[in-house]
Amino acid sequence: MPKRKKDARGEETKAGGLAELLRVPPGSRVDLAGTDAGATPGGPAGKAAGLAATAAMGERLAALQERLYASATAGDRRRVLLVLQGMDTSGKGGTVKHVIGLFNPSGCRIRAFKAPTAQEREHPFLWRIEQALPLPGEIGIFDRSHYEDVLIARVRELAPRAEVDARYGKINDFERSLADDGVTVVKVFLHIGYEEQRARLLARLDNPDKHWKFNAGDIEERALWPAYQEAYELALERCSTGPAPWYVVPADRKWYRNWAVSTLLLEHLEALAPRYPPGDFDVEECRSRLLSS
Amino acid sequence: MPKRKKDARGEETKAGGLAELLRVPPGSRVDLAGTDAGATPGGPAGKAAGLAATAAMGERLAALQERLYASATAGDRRRVLLVLQGMDTSGKGGTVKHVIGLFNPSGCRIRAFKAPTAQEREHPFLWRIEQALPLPGEIGIFDRSHYEDVLIARVRELAPRAEVDARYGKINDFERSLADDGVTVVKVFLHIGYEEQRARLLARLDNPDKHWKFNAGDIEERALWPAYQEAYELALERCSTGPAPWYVVPADRKWYRNWAVSTLLLEHLEALAPRYPPGDFDVEECRSRLLSS
Repeated sequence: MPKRKKDARGEETKAGGLAELLRVPPGSRVDLAGTDAGATPGGPAGKAAGLAATAAMGERLAALQERLYASATAGDRRRVLLVLQGMDTSGKGGTVKHVIGLFNPSGCRIRAFKAPTAQEREHPFLWRIEQALPLPGEIGIFDRSHYEDVLIARVRELAPRAEVDARYGKINDFERSLADDGVTVVKVFLHIGYEEQRARLLARLDNPDKHWKFNAGDIEERALWPAYQEAYELALERCSTGPAPWYVVPADRKWYRNWAVSTLLLEHLEALAPRYPPGDFDVEECRSRLLSS
Repeated sequence: MPKRKKDARGEETKAGGLAELLRVPPGSRVDLAGTDAGATPGGPAGKAAGLAATAAMGERLAALQERLYASATAGDRRRVLLVLQGMDTSGKGGTVKHVIGLFNPSGCRIRAFKAPTAQEREHPFLWRIEQALPLPGEIGIFDRSHYEDVLIARVRELAPRAEVDARYGKINDFERSLADDGVTVVKVFLHIGYEEQRARLLARLDNPDKHWKFNAGDIEERALWPAYQEAYELALERCSTGPAPWYVVPADRKWYRNWAVSTLLLEHLEALAPRYPPGDFDVEECRSRLLSS
């Protein structure tokens, strides 16, 4: 039995926190249909409490980010990379807005990956990913990622099956090398339900101010839902590793999604425990030079 | 006499708003020593009102940003570039944190320019600038910029005087070409006083958590204060143009600085008046396909 403890709200959480609760254990099977997208595992009691808890994390997140950034100025190579994946309307963009919006934007390196450009297609699939990695001290955010190369590439057969199959191992090697170089990789699958996706697409249709987010191709992609879910299960099973685990975040409730991703980032940043570096100058001498200037 | 009107707070502002009040009129002389860095022209009555007014702008700024971003998906090439310049401790980083923090981070492209790298030095001085420009629909933010090439380059004689002198014209041509391509260039000089800089550097020395922001070279730069102020006056005089004017923001009071930069961005975004683009699909047909899916 995992040790349990009460958190600040008096609720029971597993030792290891939310990360342990949502992590896909390496080597385990993933059953998305059997995972309730409307659940709120480990979360606050409801929407109001969730919004308040997320807002309350802002200051701590920004403070840890500043320490991480400061530490890099003294040679610390550590950084964080948040990878967001999920079906259309699962809330990748909303997560960036609401969760990454809690951080200092100057320390965030955000990249939304679209269909590869002609130039990108001339390179191996990880090439464009390497160009977008966070520098030491930064929080990197990928809205979609190299996982598209085993998701849409598999479902739409954009590459031969054997090539797609070889990519899981390449991804694992790549992510291990990132971890070895000081990158804390936090991979989040935003899990929404089939009904919820319909409701969100209909909401976009109902609001002309949201038509720019909609295109008819979204309905065709939706028709491939079972194939995408299977491709996600494969990716989560094959690429949830010790150095770079996957987390499944139920995302039908936006307030829970934002709380959960914020909490995952907070737990990882707290584990890094970055510290302000000491100065390399004589404080008293500098003070007296300043006072006489 | 410029027309005057009362704003929402009942205070008098010039028609044209804060931009008109802080703009360096093209062709005019600039006297920084005669410009009070502790003033709050056009601003709220005090700190509490300033903080509240800045926070209250957040929703409107983010809404306009989303429209600009949406509009770009339909081919609108317009975007905004905020250029921040100022002496050490003038608050360039703080402005990014507090003002740009009001926007959706996924639509912001932030670049802090340091001393040019070996690769950058092999190219003309505007080359690295061109690599960092915002894409259509984005808000670009430069923390320092191509102006360093007529500021520190002039003061420290990093390039022959004739070459530096030729750069003002190149900068004006470059910025005109940006404006022609749909870039609204908002250039802000954060104006702090000599005494205030001393106080801020001392505050960094007094707090070990801020030592990473300090280096002894800052004191040597401070000794060149008059030469830097003169270089800034030249840059503001020669490069405040119709298509890309300079704004002088008194920055001794951080709350005013944040309010003023937020307000300048708001005024420019409102003038752009971006609109959500219409969809290019049959709403009713999409709705019925979705409902039966």
